[in-house]
Amino acid sequence: MQAMLNRLVKNIAKASKGPQIDAATKAKVVIVGAGFAGLYAAKGLRDASVEVLLIDKENYHTFQPLLYQVATAGLEASEIARSVRAIFQGQKNLDFRQGLVTRVNWERKHLLLADSSEISFDYLILAAGTVYQDFGISGVKEYGFYLKSLQDALSIRHHLLSLFEEANLKPKKLEEGFLDVAIVGGGPTGVEMAGALAELYKVLARDFPRLDLTKSKIWLIEQAPHLLTPYSKASQDFALKRLEALGIGIRLNASVQAAEADGLWLREGAHHSKLPAHTLIWAAGVRAHPLAEALGLKLDKGFRVVVKDDLSLPDKPFAFVAGDMAAAKTAKGEMLAQLCPVAIQAGIHVAKQIERQLQEKPMQAFHYFDKGIMAIVGRNAGITEASAQLGGFKLRGFLGWLAWLFIHLIYLVGYQNRLQVLLNWCYNYLSHDRHVRLIMAKPDRGNPEGGNQLLQI
Amino acid sequence: MQAMLNRLVKNIAKASKGPQIDAATKAKVVIVGAGFAGLYAAKGLRDASVEVLLIDKENYHTFQPLLYQVATAGLEASEIARSVRAIFQGQKNLDFRQGLVTRVNWERKHLLLADSSEISFDYLILAAGTVYQDFGISGVKEYGFYLKSLQDALSIRHHLLSLFEEANLKPKKLEEGFLDVAIVGGGPTGVEMAGALAELYKVLARDFPRLDLTKSKIWLIEQAPHLLTPYSKASQDFALKRLEALGIGIRLNASVQAAEADGLWLREGAHHSKLPAHTLIWAAGVRAHPLAEALGLKLDKGFRVVVKDDLSLPDKPFAFVAGDMAAAKTAKGEMLAQLCPVAIQAGIHVAKQIERQLQEKPMQAFHYFDKGIMAIVGRNAGITEASAQLGGFKLRGFLGWLAWLFIHLIYLVGYQNRLQVLLNWCYNYLSHDRHVRLIMAKPDRGNPEGGNQLLQI
Repeated sequence: MQAMLNRLVKNIAKASKGPQIDAATKAKVVIVGAGFAGLYAAKGLRDASVEVLLIDKENYHTFQPLLYQVATAGLEASEIARSVRAIFQGQKNLDFRQGLVTRVNWERKHLLLADSSEISFDYLILAAGTVYQDFGISGVKEYGFYLKSLQDALSIRHHLLSLFEEANLKPKKLEEGFLDVAIVGGGPTGVEMAGALAELYKVLARDFPRLDLTKSKIWLIEQAPHLLTPYSKASQDFALKRLEALGIGIRLNASVQAAEADGLWLREGAHHSKLPAHTLIWAAGVRAHPLAEALGLKLDKGFRVVVKDDLSLPDKPFAFVAGDMAAAKTAKGEMLAQLCPVAIQAGIHVAKQIERQLQEKPMQAFHYFDKGIMAIVGRNAGITEASAQLGGFKLRGFLGWLAWLFIHLIYLVGYQNRLQVLLNWCYNYLSHDRHVRLIMAKPDRGNPEGGNQLLQI
Repeated sequence: MQAMLNRLVKNIAKASKGPQIDAATKAKVVIVGAGFAGLYAAKGLRDASVEVLLIDKENYHTFQPLLYQVATAGLEASEIARSVRAIFQGQKNLDFRQGLVTRVNWERKHLLLADSSEISFDYLILAAGTVYQDFGISGVKEYGFYLKSLQDALSIRHHLLSLFEEANLKPKKLEEGFLDVAIVGGGPTGVEMAGALAELYKVLARDFPRLDLTKSKIWLIEQAPHLLTPYSKASQDFALKRLEALGIGIRLNASVQAAEADGLWLREGAHHSKLPAHTLIWAAGVRAHPLAEALGLKLDKGFRVVVKDDLSLPDKPFAFVAGDMAAAKTAKGEMLAQLCPVAIQAGIHVAKQIERQLQEKPMQAFHYFDKGIMAIVGRNAGITEASAQLGGFKLRGFLGWLAWLFIHLIYLVGYQNRLQVLLNWCYNYLSHDRHVRLIMAKPDRGNPEGGNQLLQI
């Protein structure tokens, strides 16, 4: 009698949970991170007989490739982000939780969150991405802005616009590099940021007719002898010329020794000098999210987690790492680049592997299908380099720019976002304007509480 | 020789200032506040032979009538705001300054800013608007959210979405009123907020299928025996019925005795009770910006500054007050309502009066041309009441809603904003969705540092 009553109570409790009704019988897949890898993994499990829990410290997915446009007032933050719950509203087997994962207990198969709660899993997909690293260079943490999160992008925007307001009251400050910006890192992020910032400065020159912006300079600093390392020589030269035409000062073979509030100490060959610039944007390299270190696993270059060729962890077939956090390699043993398309394909791959395990099929190796690389260098100037697999063609200039716009719109999440971004791009293009020049928050340099921020290593 | 050299240096200095070249010879008009009154006053002085300085504590103009849509995730903040410099990019005689005015020295004709700087003027237009007031009711300041600034609206949005995330982990909390909202004030702000919030809750019910939102309630509390005091009886009844149909609990003849973190103490007749609600939105009345009190002038009801019929200050023909801060009256001696159209017309009027003074023409009395009043009560349900001057027709329901949309789009500042808002409205309407469900900042209840916030009086 007592047992029957207990079962009845249990069944009622189960039934009242709604969609979780048969949760107990299904495998639970926990995905850490709602970036590209996590998102595509979750989508890939849409029809699988599993219960999916997606965890991220924000309640939204961020389209990172366009963060620099938010920072330079070309797009609004909400246009490149979408609430995770909105993305998965139709996916009945998925729940979302906002939280920061700090540790994994491999024996008991559960995660620990920063708020001390525990979450158990049957399968685990780690996709927490990367954070910026300062390589121990003094001052970068205190004075640098990064481009990893929407908050980072908004901080840059608000900081720059506030400096302009201040400069307008004290125009003499321009001579001390008050409105000069130093962007460190000549990869796609630094190059795209430099180009977009030059366009923003043109708009601000009209906003602040009393300021003589010929006295201010945007600098792009790169340690290597060229920009855009993985690109063809012709594309590197194209980027250099376009940026110089926009008035960007390019310092190649230059390494940062230290950052201060009003400038950077540079070493160029044997020569040491201070470059005055009240704004430092740090785009000089990333490392895996600190969670990688907390896993107690073997790490590779850049703190990336060593994975098997199927992206599972050695000796832990139930756990996968996808995206920028994984030290995924090509068949030739070369580490894959930390790019969106790799993360997307890896996310789809690990979802498929979990389904295969459930069906007791053998695991498959991850093969990245490389379509090519892209970058944008200001108005009308894009670089699109198709991979050898896609014919190896290269577009530079207007066509490369159109290809870039098209591909980015396709991958942007949400129809509403696509429409808004397209509208904004048309507006910005036709009007030579930047719409969102609002100072809405106190600029916040690299916030160490944020989790997804630069860490001193 | 020395004198000649001095003059030469001075002329060069002048010339290098660009647009300010003949500033010394022109009268300087300082406008405090970039709300509707300040904006239209500045525009009205476009062709006047004056130098205009517009001061606001933010670098943007906010379209206050749509703040409630930002709070309820229907619109993004940037869509109802526009940078002041962007608005006036074509107006050569205008400069902008971001700052908070704290005092006026009438004898020396200068303003004091919160950063201790001084600004002199020949003519002054005060248009600092209003702040919310708590009428000394305990707890409102600590626990209430307001709807005056973009930050206020974003705080409400982030607070509500965070509560939902929390409730999703602890669904039992719903029984303690965890997701219940109390909106205090049955004027247009409270009514519009209630309707939009009910629509948002429908979207969130889809986002959080595990939460039983029938356990949560949105309350609208009004001291008077009806909603929308200045409207016709039929419109008041219409609003009541529409809100009840949306599931809003309406408490008329109810006054707030005290606010606590988890609810409100209400008095209804002789009956006292506590209404559980973890969110309090305070829309129960405004008072003039605290600057009004700091002026050392005669104040009227609601701390509004007493003005002459031409909106100038008694004995100070060079100074005007326009918009919600002025105790402007009709010819019959009735105080004008604190509405956007009054502020717009007052702004245009004072600009004209300053031009007339420069031309040594006599001052004119301000006559408000009343076109009517509008409010919106959720999807498809608008109230538009034309004034007697415009025929006195009344539209309720779908037509009233279309009229409301149309008029608000017309007055929204910036073509880009209009397009984006229209796009968003179409999207929200067709998809029954709310696009911007992002938690991007820590909710911040009534920030006393903000200046334009609720003050205890």
